[in-house]
Amino acid sequence: MLVDVTLTADTVEGRDVDGRTAIVIDVLRASSTVVTALANGCREVIPVATPEEAFAFKRERVAGYLLGGERGAVKIPGFDLGNSPSEYTGELVGGRGVVLTTTNGTKTLLRVSGAERVLVGCFLNAAAVARSVAAGPGLVLACAGTKGRFSLEDFAAAGAILAELPGDGLEISDLAMAALATYRQLLDSQGLVDTLSRTGHGKDLARLGFAEDIIYCAKVNMWDVVPEYRAGAIRKASQE
Amino acid sequence: MLVDVTLTADTVEGRDVDGRTAIVIDVLRASSTVVTALANGCREVIPVATPEEAFAFKRERVAGYLLGGERGAVKIPGFDLGNSPSEYTGELVGGRGVVLTTTNGTKTLLRVSGAERVLVGCFLNAAAVARSVAAGPGLVLACAGTKGRFSLEDFAAAGAILAELPGDGLEISDLAMAALATYRQLLDSQGLVDTLSRTGHGKDLARLGFAEDIIYCAKVNMWDVVPEYRAGAIRKASQE
Repeated sequence: MLVDVTLTADTVEGRDVDGRTAIVIDVLRASSTVVTALANGCREVIPVATPEEAFAFKRERVAGYLLGGERGAVKIPGFDLGNSPSEYTGELVGGRGVVLTTTNGTKTLLRVSGAERVLVGCFLNAAAVARSVAAGPGLVLACAGTKGRFSLEDFAAAGAILAELPGDGLEISDLAMAALATYRQLLDSQGLVDTLSRTGHGKDLARLGFAEDIIYCAKVNMWDVVPEYRAGAIRKASQE
Repeated sequence: MLVDVTLTADTVEGRDVDGRTAIVIDVLRASSTVVTALANGCREVIPVATPEEAFAFKRERVAGYLLGGERGAVKIPGFDLGNSPSEYTGELVGGRGVVLTTTNGTKTLLRVSGAERVLVGCFLNAAAVARSVAAGPGLVLACAGTKGRFSLEDFAAAGAILAELPGDGLEISDLAMAALATYRQLLDSQGLVDTLSRTGHGKDLARLGFAEDIIYCAKVNMWDVVPEYRAGAIRKASQE
């Protein structure tokens, strides 16, 4: 199985994922939020590109849905939820649907939607998502990045997922080797909370009061949930 | 000092290096060849984009120059030297000039030529080149990559140079943090010769019979030489 990594929402292209499985990685925080929402009983997450589309979805199609997401890391006016995983509790999202729009993660998801399978991964579900793709036709770890720039936290999470793949039969690209080395080194030396706190995006989030999100999003293998995007909705893969 | 990394010759842009020092990194093999040539007494290396320009330089301007370089990793027909550092011995290049054209390294050098300073770095001179920029206005480690793709060996060498910079006063980008982590992990776990042998470019070179080049190019801090590109020529920075 060929394994590659792409670095930003802006640079991933259809041909990168054609015939392969894509795992969309936006650690801070869209992927972590989706995993947490589904783990807490959310029925489905509908990713949309803009707040306007989210309002239209709720108005024209399904009134019972919650609206979640961010612009500039903060909750969108008129929305029910921001983009902190901690908001997506069982009490709020259990049994319900959520329409989600975020700056980088949603964009990446929509750009790789032509892949054979589209999954959502992060530190929280690294082992689960790796198990789910172990026998696939080819794998692209599609890091979302932040506003078109490389994000260390997404790259390290790609490494965390790679670390959980069985090593035999894999043909690992140079970039995938670098992601794996980066993850192992950061885990061993400074730990993931410290790493995420030093990233460009992590520093921005801490300034905005979301330091707790960083601590949570750095937890490895907390949830045994594999979100899969199909026909416009993200649901638990095992429910398909 | 801001420190960033760019990943391929195709993606580095003038605005990435404007007002900063750029270190061009093409471990396999242009940077390693330039460092070795200057270490062995070569007076200057003239980087040109195409074999035709190399022939024209020799024909029209300076007949005594040697022509060096590669296309598809092998020596260009009619050239004196290929792109193996081992060819650039003191006997051949001592006191002489070389016109060099290579696929990725030369291209990167020409694309960052608008930087405040342009240096050439690799494992062989990591500490020397790091010392040379320690007090600069800002630093971009410009990895050449291979045919538009990320190259692990260049990224790891960027990390090797970062590891030699004094840590205080540096503002390290996410990508620079990843390069540093990658270098440290690969050095500690599998070593650099093994790492370079597993890269896409390393495997191609080994197939073509250049395995000795890989072993040589993985030597860290072998030479105390800082090649600087200025006014069309690469010379030892200390000779300026």
